[in-house]
Formats: sequence, structure tokens, C-alpha cells
Amino acid sequence: MAGGIGSRFWPISRTSYPKQFIDILGTGKTLIQQTYERFLKIVPKENIFILTNDNYINLVKAQLNQIDDAQIIGEPIMRNTAPCIAYGSHKIRKINPNASIVVAPSDHLIMDNDEFIRCINIALEVASKNDCLITLGIKPSRPDTGYGYIQYNTQKIEENLFKVKTFTEKPNLEIAKTFVQSGDFLWNAGIFVWSAENIIKSFEKYLPEMNDIFLEGTEIYNTDKEKEFIQSAFTQCTNISIDYGIMEKADNVYVLPSEFGWSDLGTWDSVYELSEKDYVGNAVRPAERVIMYDSSNCMVNVPIGKLVVLQGLHDYIVVEDNNTLLICPRDQEQEIKQIVADIKQRFGPEFT
Amino acid sequence: MAGGIGSRFWPISRTSYPKQFIDILGTGKTLIQQTYERFLKIVPKENIFILTNDNYINLVKAQLNQIDDAQIIGEPIMRNTAPCIAYGSHKIRKINPNASIVVAPSDHLIMDNDEFIRCINIALEVASKNDCLITLGIKPSRPDTGYGYIQYNTQKIEENLFKVKTFTEKPNLEIAKTFVQSGDFLWNAGIFVWSAENIIKSFEKYLPEMNDIFLEGTEIYNTDKEKEFIQSAFTQCTNISIDYGIMEKADNVYVLPSEFGWSDLGTWDSVYELSEKDYVGNAVRPAERVIMYDSSNCMVNVPIGKLVVLQGLHDYIVVEDNNTLLICPRDQEQEIKQIVADIKQRFGPEFT
Repeated sequence: MAGGIGSRFWPISRTSYPKQFIDILGTGKTLIQQTYERFLKIVPKENIFILTNDNYINLVKAQLNQIDDAQIIGEPIMRNTAPCIAYGSHKIRKINPNASIVVAPSDHLIMDNDEFIRCINIALEVASKNDCLITLGIKPSRPDTGYGYIQYNTQKIEENLFKVKTFTEKPNLEIAKTFVQSGDFLWNAGIFVWSAENIIKSFEKYLPEMNDIFLEGTEIYNTDKEKEFIQSAFTQCTNISIDYGIMEKADNVYVLPSEFGWSDLGTWDSVYELSEKDYVGNAVRPAERVIMYDSSNCMVNVPIGKLVVLQGLHDYIVVEDNNTLLICPRDQEQEIKQIVADIKQRFGPEFT
Repeated sequence: MAGGIGSRFWPISRTSYPKQFIDILGTGKTLIQQTYERFLKIVPKENIFILTNDNYINLVKAQLNQIDDAQIIGEPIMRNTAPCIAYGSHKIRKINPNASIVVAPSDHLIMDNDEFIRCINIALEVASKNDCLITLGIKPSRPDTGYGYIQYNTQKIEENLFKVKTFTEKPNLEIAKTFVQSGDFLWNAGIFVWSAENIIKSFEKYLPEMNDIFLEGTEIYNTDKEKEFIQSAFTQCTNISIDYGIMEKADNVYVLPSEFGWSDLGTWDSVYELSEKDYVGNAVRPAERVIMYDSSNCMVNVPIGKLVVLQGLHDYIVVEDNNTLLICPRDQEQEIKQIVADIKQRFGPEFT
């Protein structure tokens, strides 16, 4: 899934060039490139499908140049994850009715690829043999209030796959602390594994109208008429997430507790936490021409070659890209989303 | 005088493009253009001479395009104000032995041009008839610690021209307060009026070696050989200011207490003080695309068209130019001079 607009990373992430297409940690590869290469070790490349907004198809082509055009699937409008997954599932079932599917965001960070691959392979094995929906849960290392949580119980479908009791939205700090202490909560990473058959069965049960829309296209998928069909299909769909539409309602959801160095890279602060820092806590990219005097715990991300001098600045984000400069305290970065909305209204969408 | 490098206004003022050539307050004209036009109301344009560094001659030509090339006088090396004034005085005396001279910096702000002209005309009148050196003293409006002070007594040469008792370097705040309260101190504006004859007499007395250097050129000034002569003359001069070399020593110095809305625009903070500010004290140029949330008392100066978002920033200077960004608390701007020195050493002079 590569259709998000990443507005919390503005001004580096833009509606026209969102986060998944950016090398936000400076590793040399963009997030979607890293995700693609990770899955190359799990499935043959012809089995990888990228669902993205029509506007980003050329970006995907440019960044994943080995992939066939037919594997890049455009969504005409943003309708959240449920329509995206319904579409992909029906399309894949047409190719192979026995397919197992991994659904994953393209803009997350995973540090331990080997462990990720091991977890996915376990989940695929279980999903192909059982009537279940599997989600990967991350063992929490801190009471993060930016993540959803999954509570599970001791009932297993197979070794290490536990029945999910509840999905919980982002908690406050007090609740997050009790979640982490209790030991039976995991972070919801939004990475799912299931058979095409089982997820479509779940759509039939919990989102039947949406399922009917995409079921109608069965004869059309993977033909010349698919694009036209989808154009109309998406406009009929409600905007709903897979979590809210299916996962929170289904009773055959299992979680695989996992530890593979995961972050959703959802905020500048998460990037700051993951970045290399100097001895006074400044994370600077690129460091070559950024000079800091009496400054600490700042996150600086500016174009290559830009000379930046910070004097007496502490705990700030300083980000520049696209001829746009943002200076914001690290603990106020939740304001960025509103700021981007303001700017869109004031100056037009081309600035966001 | 237009030879300074204005390093305190970095990164907008650069060694290759210093403050006098910049429209630092956004008035539509650069400081040297304003200064030139002010003097056009006092003397015919052929009587205006610009002394500047050889490196800035083309900048002067570009900004004062009505002026004759012969009136732009290059100094081969920076040697402070005394050699500059000695050179100019001898050159002008060669043209007219009875000349009266106004010496003025090209990078100061003067708000009330009419009053300035009135003061200069009074001083010229007195200087042409008396053996005296006149300096313009500004009536202090606050105990500014960034200026030198002039103490004067009640002995007059003519109405309103008082004998100078002492020149004082930049005082600390306590001392500045007593200066302002006493009523007999003025700010030293570095604007001087005297006859060519009298200032050369003072050079003979207080800086005789320097005077000899320039006296030797008497036959050469305003000929083809002047440039070559000056090249050698300047290297022989010591680096000394007119204040230290002559004004503090001479006993015929008089001051004209003046009020014409003067600032030496010596610091970003002085620009901030003079700028139009919004109701929370932000002075922003250009304001079109600078957006501030929960930010106050900031001075923002960025290129036209640049989108800047400040969140939660108070009492800072945010300045960008020449692909260089500076963020600095307003009360730490005295660090900028050292920062510029650091950057010169670290990245080379082309960055300063």
C-alpha cells in the first residue's frame, strides 16, 4: 500500500511527493524501495503488487524500475485501506484462488529484515492452512501514545499465534503504561497476512456492500477494462479502514507477537529517535554544512549544500525542502498536520 | 565611506556584497543609494566622492549609475578610517585648497533628511570659517551600549557648537545610564565636518607619518598615476581609526548636538527595533509567505517567495540569504561576528 500523502512530514513530504517516496532516514534508499526489496526475499517479484493513488504511479515506476507496469495498481481516489484491500484481494484471487496475501504499508521502517521475513513466512504458512486473519503485533518497548494496541489472550491457533481480544485506538500515557506493563498488549503495525479466500469471506460478512462492488469486477480484473471499472467502483465505496471495517469485528483474528525493529515513522520525532545523534542530542542531516552553537536535542534536515547556523536553539525541528522552511519545537510537532491544512487553504494545494 | 564588510549582518551582508549595498530595511533603496541622494541635496553631484574597497567599485557603479567613474575611489586594502580620510582630504585639497568636507559612512540610517541637511549646512558654515574639527553628536534616546559617547561642555565655538571634552568607547549599561541622565553626552555618529586645510593640519600633528605618505602624492592625485601611487601608499599605512588617531587627541573638536532619526544599523537588533512589527512583536520581511504560530518578538528576513512556518519561536532572529540560514536568539546576536569568523576558517571566505 503506497497511497498515503504523509502530511506529518511536510515540508519534506508533499502531497505530490509523499513520505514513501523519500529517503527520510538518509539510508540511500526510499522507504518504498526498502519495502520492495524486503519482499523480494519472500515472494517472486511478479507477485508483488503496489496499490497507490493514480497520481503516484509515475513515482512508483521511477523508484521501482524493475517492476512490470501491470503490478502497479492505481486508485482513482483516496478511500482508506478497506477498498484498497478489497480491490487487491479480488484481483489476486482472479489470478490465483488459493493465493495467500501479505498486506503491508510501504512507508514503515523495519530494522531486522531477517526476523521480519521469518515472521511473515510463519504467518503465510498458518494463513494458508487455517480460516484466520493474521496481524503482526510488535512487542512494545515503551508506552507510545502514537500507536494503536492489540490485546491478545492465550488461545493459540498454532505455536506463537494468539487470538486477538481487542483492538485499541491510540491510548493516553497512563493507559499506555498499563498496557505495556500487563504484557498482553502489542503495537498494531498494520501488517496483515491471510488467504485471498478468507479475507474476501470477511468482506462478505462485515462489509458486504463494498465486497459486492469489487465482486462485480471479477470478469474484468487483469483485462483492458479494469481501469474504467475501478474508476467507477471506487467512487461507490465508503471511506473506511480495514481495522475499523473488519479487524475489530471479526472473531478469527490472530496476532503473531514480533520483534523486528519496527517503526511506522509516523512523526518527525520518530525519525529523531531513530537518527544518529551527537553528544548533545542533535540529529543533523546532512551534517556537512550545518553548524550548531549552544544548541541541543535538535533535529535538522535540510538540502545538501545548504549552510545552516543554529545558535542557542534547543529541542526544535528545523526542516527545509522545496523552498519551504519549518521551525517547530519537537514537542509541538502534532501541530504540523493543522499547519499543512492552513497552508493548503491559504496558498493552495501546490504548497503542501 | 563605503569600504566596510558588514559581517554582523551575515548571511544577508557578505564580504562580497556588504551592508551598504543592501536594502536592509526594505525601503526600495540600498543604504548607499539613500546616503548618496541625501547628499545630492547638500552639494552638486560632482563634489561627492565614494571611498570604497577596490573590490566594491563595480557595486558602487551599479548602484550609483549617475556618478562619474573618477568620483569612485578605490582603496587597495582595508586600513580603517584614518588612511581613507587622509587620502580623500589630500585628493580634495588638490582640487580645491579651500574645500570644506563632510565625511560620512554610507551605511547608516537617517530618518529626517531635512534636519540632517540643516545640521550639515550649519556645520559646513562653521567649519569653513574656524580652525576646528566638527563631529555630529546624536541626542541619546536610550542608554545604548552599542555606541560610543561624546561628552561636551558649555564652551561654544558658535551657537550650538560645543567643545568636546572626551570620546568614550562603548560603555556598559550602568555607565550608559549615567551618561544619558547627565545630559552632557551624545552618541558618536561618525559623521565629521571640517575644512581640508584643518584636517590635514591635524594629520600633520597627530599622524605625521601617515600624512607624509599621502602628502607625497600631491602632484599625482587626479592623474593617471594615482592608482599606482595609492597601491603602494596604503600598504605603508597603519590600521587606525580617525576617532582614535585624531579626534580623541585634538583639542579643537566641537560637536553639534543633533536629532535626525539616526541609527548606525549596526546590528540585527537595531534593524528589528526600526522595523514595523505585528501586535506580538514579529518583524517579518517579506511577510507574504511567512506564517507564525504561537511565535512572538521574532525578526524574520528571508528571500521573496520563500515559505516559512514558525511554530512556538520567541525572541529569535531567522535570516536566510545566499542559500544560508541563520537562527539565533535576538539577545545573542553579538555571537554572529565570531560565527562568521568560524565559517570563514572552516568553509572558506566564499561563505562569508
